[in-house]
Amino acid sequence: MPAAVTDPGTLRPRSWWGWGYADAHPADAECVAMGALLPGTFNRPLPIPRIADLSIAGPAVAPPPSLAHLITADPRARAAHAMGKAYRDVIRALRGRPGRIPDLVAHPTDDQDVADLLDWAGEHEVAVIPFGGGSSVVGGVEYRGDAHRAVLSLDLTSMGRVLEIDTAGRSARIQAGALGPELEAQLRPCGLTLRHFPQSFEFSTLGGWLATRAGGHYATVRTHIDDFVQCLRVVTPAGASASWRLPASGAGPSPDRLFLGSEGALGVITEAWMRLQERPRHKASASVAFSDFHRALDAVRALAQSDLAPANCRLLDAGEALFSGASHDGSTVLILGFESATGPVDDRLSSAVDLACAYGGRARPRPAESDAPADSTVSAWRSAFLRMPYLRDGLARMGAIVETFETAATWDKIPALIHDVHSEVSAAALKATGHPATVNCRLTHVYPDGAAPYFTVAVAGRPDAEIEIWDEIKTVVSEVLHRHRATITHHHAVGRDHRPGYDLQRPEPFALALHAAKRTLDPHHILNPGVLLD
Amino acid sequence: MPAAVTDPGTLRPRSWWGWGYADAHPADAECVAMGALLPGTFNRPLPIPRIADLSIAGPAVAPPPSLAHLITADPRARAAHAMGKAYRDVIRALRGRPGRIPDLVAHPTDDQDVADLLDWAGEHEVAVIPFGGGSSVVGGVEYRGDAHRAVLSLDLTSMGRVLEIDTAGRSARIQAGALGPELEAQLRPCGLTLRHFPQSFEFSTLGGWLATRAGGHYATVRTHIDDFVQCLRVVTPAGASASWRLPASGAGPSPDRLFLGSEGALGVITEAWMRLQERPRHKASASVAFSDFHRALDAVRALAQSDLAPANCRLLDAGEALFSGASHDGSTVLILGFESATGPVDDRLSSAVDLACAYGGRARPRPAESDAPADSTVSAWRSAFLRMPYLRDGLARMGAIVETFETAATWDKIPALIHDVHSEVSAAALKATGHPATVNCRLTHVYPDGAAPYFTVAVAGRPDAEIEIWDEIKTVVSEVLHRHRATITHHHAVGRDHRPGYDLQRPEPFALALHAAKRTLDPHHILNPGVLLD
Repeated sequence: MPAAVTDPGTLRPRSWWGWGYADAHPADAECVAMGALLPGTFNRPLPIPRIADLSIAGPAVAPPPSLAHLITADPRARAAHAMGKAYRDVIRALRGRPGRIPDLVAHPTDDQDVADLLDWAGEHEVAVIPFGGGSSVVGGVEYRGDAHRAVLSLDLTSMGRVLEIDTAGRSARIQAGALGPELEAQLRPCGLTLRHFPQSFEFSTLGGWLATRAGGHYATVRTHIDDFVQCLRVVTPAGASASWRLPASGAGPSPDRLFLGSEGALGVITEAWMRLQERPRHKASASVAFSDFHRALDAVRALAQSDLAPANCRLLDAGEALFSGASHDGSTVLILGFESATGPVDDRLSSAVDLACAYGGRARPRPAESDAPADSTVSAWRSAFLRMPYLRDGLARMGAIVETFETAATWDKIPALIHDVHSEVSAAALKATGHPATVNCRLTHVYPDGAAPYFTVAVAGRPDAEIEIWDEIKTVVSEVLHRHRATITHHHAVGRDHRPGYDLQRPEPFALALHAAKRTLDPHHILNPGVLLD
Repeated sequence: MPAAVTDPGTLRPRSWWGWGYADAHPADAECVAMGALLPGTFNRPLPIPRIADLSIAGPAVAPPPSLAHLITADPRARAAHAMGKAYRDVIRALRGRPGRIPDLVAHPTDDQDVADLLDWAGEHEVAVIPFGGGSSVVGGVEYRGDAHRAVLSLDLTSMGRVLEIDTAGRSARIQAGALGPELEAQLRPCGLTLRHFPQSFEFSTLGGWLATRAGGHYATVRTHIDDFVQCLRVVTPAGASASWRLPASGAGPSPDRLFLGSEGALGVITEAWMRLQERPRHKASASVAFSDFHRALDAVRALAQSDLAPANCRLLDAGEALFSGASHDGSTVLILGFESATGPVDDRLSSAVDLACAYGGRARPRPAESDAPADSTVSAWRSAFLRMPYLRDGLARMGAIVETFETAATWDKIPALIHDVHSEVSAAALKATGHPATVNCRLTHVYPDGAAPYFTVAVAGRPDAEIEIWDEIKTVVSEVLHRHRATITHHHAVGRDHRPGYDLQRPEPFALALHAAKRTLDPHHILNPGVLLD
């Protein structure tokens, strides 16, 4: 059964239209209760959309007999591969207009399968959309336009094995289609972990993380998956690329760095040797409350510039803290976490809390270091974090516009950037909807030289105009980010939705080089057309 | 006065034929004393070569009037820009055959100058060799062949200023032509440092470090200059590329990573925003001796996999320890150093020494933590480290073959790799010269998943056959590295000398992409022809 229909690990059915597991969506009553918090939303939720209600035409091409065993034209599988999990995708499903449904879905089992599928697609003008867990929130896994004869969704999840583990060298060769839990389960017997836990962990794959330069578990130092790559295997229409397994090299521009972030436009990442960690045995977390957001920013900067290297260092503004249950008194809340495989981390946590208090923070009570659950603020925040995408879908059913976006900028720009996003995005949302909007902010990753702010917008929409309204709001978002020279994405990737902002940000000579690489590696222009490049 | 003739900071004359300052070369008597340690070398040193003895033809092109103020055809400047500082370069100078001397040397003062020079060169089939400190040891700054009408050495050292410092965000905008000491002198008043101290620190530039992905001060975690880059400005024949100043981004493949390591083949790096550190106030170092090299390797791996993150973690094998004065009893010696701007590091040093001792190491006596000079072993090693290239040149004058090479590999390969280099390179050197060779090894950088071994070879040569012999030895080196899938270079770069090994290592689709980028950015093929690509 295709992975995006039923989860290969848990056998729980996946939602085809919204986040995660179909059985985890909030019930109608919960949707109504949430909707009541956003004035102007519906009284009852839109019905959960059914694949059976879509009119799905037959595929425009037939698979060749030699590859037929890898390919399905089942409408349920095709619908489940039609798009990612952005707010706009949820609305498209709720409104019964999911856009172009791929003609076929392939499940290759090895590199040769991938190469054969690319060869066939190149000969037949078939666009190939690499698909991992399908959790893209930037239009990264869908087809737009009609320049190709047909569309093939290339689902990598049948390539989900850990092939080799080097325990002494703490690394493993892992197939790109491994979903987060599947990957960790195979590493656990060796006491090792990749420790890459994006919010989408359960529903995204190693290959997807690599192709999108995902941001993971670490809030400081090594935040992106890029830093944990020893080498990559990438199947391109011009041949397979296999870099050597090395701890480091200075031999020319890094070959891996060209494919990291290439979003399926230059090739299909099929496996990687990844650097692992010993499983942490010592953990400690705490939270610190601030009355003043700007002093909290200074505290976080000082932490990022210290030697302490917290594994978690998330700053929630008052709205975000309220929404996630981390605070109810209008405080800004800093969530701190330390982890180690080798020794206690309580001293580092204490030093970090002391440092935060030197900037006006108030330490919250916390339990002694242990493997037991962390303090209640941390727990509340973590539950809200994992449940958030489901709630978004429930709110979407109530006619609300709920979406997130993220960026990064140097510290000198952070206060004005956050201020302008708040004021201009709130104003744009009010103007577009007539309703007051909530715009919350947290810092997800922090660096000695800057930070990655992550924003959530919630506002009641207008029936059947949600996408248009969100596009208006997002245009303002992109303008503010561009004016501050803040990146269009810190870890969500570019996909199709961020193309305008990305095109402005990308230096023109690099764009020329990337186009040249694309023409060479993908001469028939079949690979994920529309992401990164035209 | 051109920088490679007289140092712009110290006004000391630079050696045109060998390492560093002309007044720092060992005197003849010291050369003779060193030569006596290598049986088969000469009784007296070859004379120091003089530019006046070279027959340097007039330039094949005249500079255009509009750029004439930036360009010199002075034979001394041209000779000083003819090549880098590899052993083979020293021999070529000593033998009066430095190879092709550039026709002209330009000293641009800003990006527009660079763009104008590239435009002119493109129109007139003039090869452009970007030149920083000229310390390449891989043939990175010379011209080979005759496919171009003329050769222009593009000396960036007139662009050596720190243009802007963001103290709160710990970063600075620095021109690419800044030599190490010049750069640090401009940062010092702010209490900040780039802390990038390659062996060539005095004689290399920021732009050179970036273009070659130099390895620097840190032995662990962030070892390469790459990790300290916020953004780059690169002037290419197809236009200037300016990436945004960001702490991190996930927007497509990193534009900076295409130019890092591009060795002047894709464009001329003219400035960068670099991440800085607070100047360390707390330092401590120690050394640990081992009887067993393989247990020392295990100790170093354990250290690299710990949370301790030593700034220095160099393992010297018995020969290397003897040669540098770090040990005289056949021990392997581990040099450990810790630094911090924020607090004492003595605990971390003690933990590291304890960890090393758990693998059979014997701690050497050391002074208490202070700013005072570190222990005598560490000092001896550091002096030898900085003096080494001068001694190499003295030995070269005595007819010795003395050269280094370096690599990196995962831990599983390290013992056999080091063994095979020792045995096969010793055998090759003996076969080629009839004399016994010294092959020493140290680990310069260590990672959780591997290490970077650095080798020194010394053997008596045959008069006027030194380069041929070294090429024979180097062929064996490359074979051993390739067999073990160890990188052709960890931080010396590829240049022209490492091309065969690099071509074997580089994945073919990446080579295709790099060629495509080159054709697009450098359509007249004038930029450093022969490095990385044909």
